[in-house]
Amino acid sequence: MTIQFIGRPGIVDLGWGHPDPESLPVTQWAAANASALGRYGWAALTYGAGPGPAPLVDWLCARMAETDGRRPDPAEVFVTGGASQGLELVTSVLTQPGDTVLVDTPTYHLALRVLADHRIHLVAAPVDDIGMLPAATEELIGRLGRVAFVYLVPTFSNPTGASLPADRRRALVGVGARTGVPVVEDDTYRELSYAGPAPDSLWSLDGDAVIRLGSFSKSVAPGLRLGWITAAAPFVRRLADRGFVDSGGGVNHAVALAMAEFGSSGAYARHVDAIRDRYRERRDALAGAVRRHVEAAEFTVPDGGWFLWARLPSTVDTEVLLDRAERAGVAYLPGARFYVDPPSTVDFLRLSFSMLGTAELIEGARRLGRALAERQPAG
Amino acid sequence: MTIQFIGRPGIVDLGWGHPDPESLPVTQWAAANASALGRYGWAALTYGAGPGPAPLVDWLCARMAETDGRRPDPAEVFVTGGASQGLELVTSVLTQPGDTVLVDTPTYHLALRVLADHRIHLVAAPVDDIGMLPAATEELIGRLGRVAFVYLVPTFSNPTGASLPADRRRALVGVGARTGVPVVEDDTYRELSYAGPAPDSLWSLDGDAVIRLGSFSKSVAPGLRLGWITAAAPFVRRLADRGFVDSGGGVNHAVALAMAEFGSSGAYARHVDAIRDRYRERRDALAGAVRRHVEAAEFTVPDGGWFLWARLPSTVDTEVLLDRAERAGVAYLPGARFYVDPPSTVDFLRLSFSMLGTAELIEGARRLGRALAERQPAG
Repeated sequence: MTIQFIGRPGIVDLGWGHPDPESLPVTQWAAANASALGRYGWAALTYGAGPGPAPLVDWLCARMAETDGRRPDPAEVFVTGGASQGLELVTSVLTQPGDTVLVDTPTYHLALRVLADHRIHLVAAPVDDIGMLPAATEELIGRLGRVAFVYLVPTFSNPTGASLPADRRRALVGVGARTGVPVVEDDTYRELSYAGPAPDSLWSLDGDAVIRLGSFSKSVAPGLRLGWITAAAPFVRRLADRGFVDSGGGVNHAVALAMAEFGSSGAYARHVDAIRDRYRERRDALAGAVRRHVEAAEFTVPDGGWFLWARLPSTVDTEVLLDRAERAGVAYLPGARFYVDPPSTVDFLRLSFSMLGTAELIEGARRLGRALAERQPAG
Repeated sequence: MTIQFIGRPGIVDLGWGHPDPESLPVTQWAAANASALGRYGWAALTYGAGPGPAPLVDWLCARMAETDGRRPDPAEVFVTGGASQGLELVTSVLTQPGDTVLVDTPTYHLALRVLADHRIHLVAAPVDDIGMLPAATEELIGRLGRVAFVYLVPTFSNPTGASLPADRRRALVGVGARTGVPVVEDDTYRELSYAGPAPDSLWSLDGDAVIRLGSFSKSVAPGLRLGWITAAAPFVRRLADRGFVDSGGGVNHAVALAMAEFGSSGAYARHVDAIRDRYRERRDALAGAVRRHVEAAEFTVPDGGWFLWARLPSTVDTEVLLDRAERAGVAYLPGARFYVDPPSTVDFLRLSFSMLGTAELIEGARRLGRALAERQPAG
């Protein structure tokens, strides 16, 4: 009908990084919207401020004081039409065709598409099993000469669910500061932490070296197309000076004011607490079922986010296995999708535990186990 | 506070191309939003379809069947975050730095800024007093070689309020078809026609040669950041395939579904009828007052849109006059702002009749007359 997600009959699709439909705050959002129109009247419907309306900016600053290592100054905040639009905008401002951008491996596959639209060279930054290697990345930047920026999802990453350790965070931010190459931090999953507070953002460690992309897509609702950026005030001014932002009076004014109501009324905090519990439960259900039914899979249970990144035996190409898996009634995203330069065989796969209920997650894991077991027919 | 517009005390500002605050449909919009959330539930809040949700696309097709020369096919419609974001997107897809884009003169000043962000060469297309000259434009395209597109506001133009005559529309579309250079038609003011139906769009004459940018900013509310594009289906697919559009699930899904309710409930048609009457009255008040108080001004009363484009005696530089006008308590936009290559002196100015009430419009004209009369102090 009107939605992008199309269920395939008979398939438990663990590929979709979509929210749990039942967790979307339908009635609370209607109330927030009515409240914003009541409070601001016509001012909610006319042209807004380029960097976003003050009530949302102020609320965001207060929220980040609680959920991150540093409270932004309002001049360091820019309201976007979601993290993807934020990345599109930042890439438009920072790059020209032919420029080089360094990206983490594996990383958010659709970010690679956003970047590729700008006709830039995507180069994989050096990594190990834990994440990006700061010293080797600095060396690579030195070798390459001009690099427009470095992109990564350091907290509850898509696809791995892992977070970059604190020492690497500090070192990576230092690389950004020394080389002058901005670090673009996709911080979409911060609110979805299941084991205590999320790590402090790279941005909170150095607000000059880092441009952080935030989002309401996972914490509230992706259909609202609302997010934010924290960055140095002069960079925020550059974003607000972009012609289409200035001409439009901000990128999503009315929705931003409704979000300010959703936030200041306490509905946001209550909602995030509730979905955190729900997603934690789903994570545990999927992790337990994979452990039980896909014995050969190796994975670390993620402390946040929506994804379980599992490694199958190295003889398995997860792109090839997908056909058999779908015949067994389960789907996932093969790991190769998350690489700039995928090796010939990738034995990882991404399983999402966000959209489906626990019974479906368990059934999906059972079917995946069956597909894997059947993959080498007795000869 | 939260809005971009800041009134300057003591100044009647005829510069702002903003809507009448009292005409913004605050309660009706709250109802439309609640109705969409009631009808679609969670589907209104999750990821949407890249080209926009079907209910809005279908309603737009039906509306254009009434307000334009041809009903689009749904595959020819792409929902945008407003006309400015539409222009940003189209420019991203069609140009590379260094490309040439031809623009009308005078034309929407903020569109020039949107285009300039892309580091392209803006070249003024040949014009006369009536508008763009198709044959001379075709010749210029031939001389320049590669031209990425041609941009104009042919209907109730910003800033002139004028519309390109039917014969030139046909000829211009023919130029686009023969040269393969897309014509980008900014069609923001179509619904605000005060003397019968608006002229058929360029797009309706040739849906392959023309990319038309539509908007809800003038017909409903700019703060919603919602518009659309009609173009050939393959081009719509290119827009929907843009990485950030695909990753985000459309650019403004929830608002688009609320607009579908606003449209299908009849609220849109009633609202547009009402504001048309109101803006017509304001146009007449301003035109009458300028005639009375600024006798030296020459202008044609526009049949639609928000602007009166007036020519002062050729000895007047409207950029220079602005200081004196502001001291007399009135402001406007000097004509030079609407030129790619402004001549040394521009004797035109743009007066907006959209935002202020009739009493203020009349007082503004009176003050403008006074500023003009005082401009040459007795020596």
